[in-house]
Amino acid sequence: MTDYTVTVTVRLKKGVLDPEAKTTQRALERLGFSLADLRSADRFEIDLEADDAEAARERASEMAERLLANPTIHDYEIAVAER
Amino acid sequence: MTDYTVTVTVRLKKGVLDPEAKTTQRALERLGFSLADLRSADRFEIDLEADDAEAARERASEMAERLLANPTIHDYEIAVAER
Repeated sequence: MTDYTVTVTVRLKKGVLDPEAKTTQRALERLGFSLADLRSADRFEIDLEADDAEAARERASEMAERLLANPTIHDYEIAVAER
Repeated sequence: MTDYTVTVTVRLKKGVLDPEAKTTQRALERLGFSLADLRSADRFEIDLEADDAEAARERASEMAERLLANPTIHDYEIAVAER
């Protein structure tokens, strides 16, 4: 077994409204920053043991499907690194 | 001016309690997953125009200091990519 850190990034699908991001963007603009767009995402860094990187990725993917992301509105991305 | 996407990742400093992450970790464990640790972070993807990558990074850093992160409890990381 090897120690891995898997990073799951969960973001809203294109077209799903993100009022929190819009509020953050407007707050930055009120502070005088100029920006074309702002998107927000949640990032989970998970330490786990697995046989290999492929197994770690599969486990993370299952975690995303079952709890971390809502497949109706979210896309997710997984990155695996040895620890 | 060039179009950049800067990614600001904001995470709690080491030692700051993160009850939301602990709750997520426990929920995953209740679903039968075994994991050593889970940390959560916020990720902001910001589209902006700047003279060069260094200027884009500086602007993002100022945004983090002034609004996106709370320097008392957060660390942040910036990545710059041309769009």
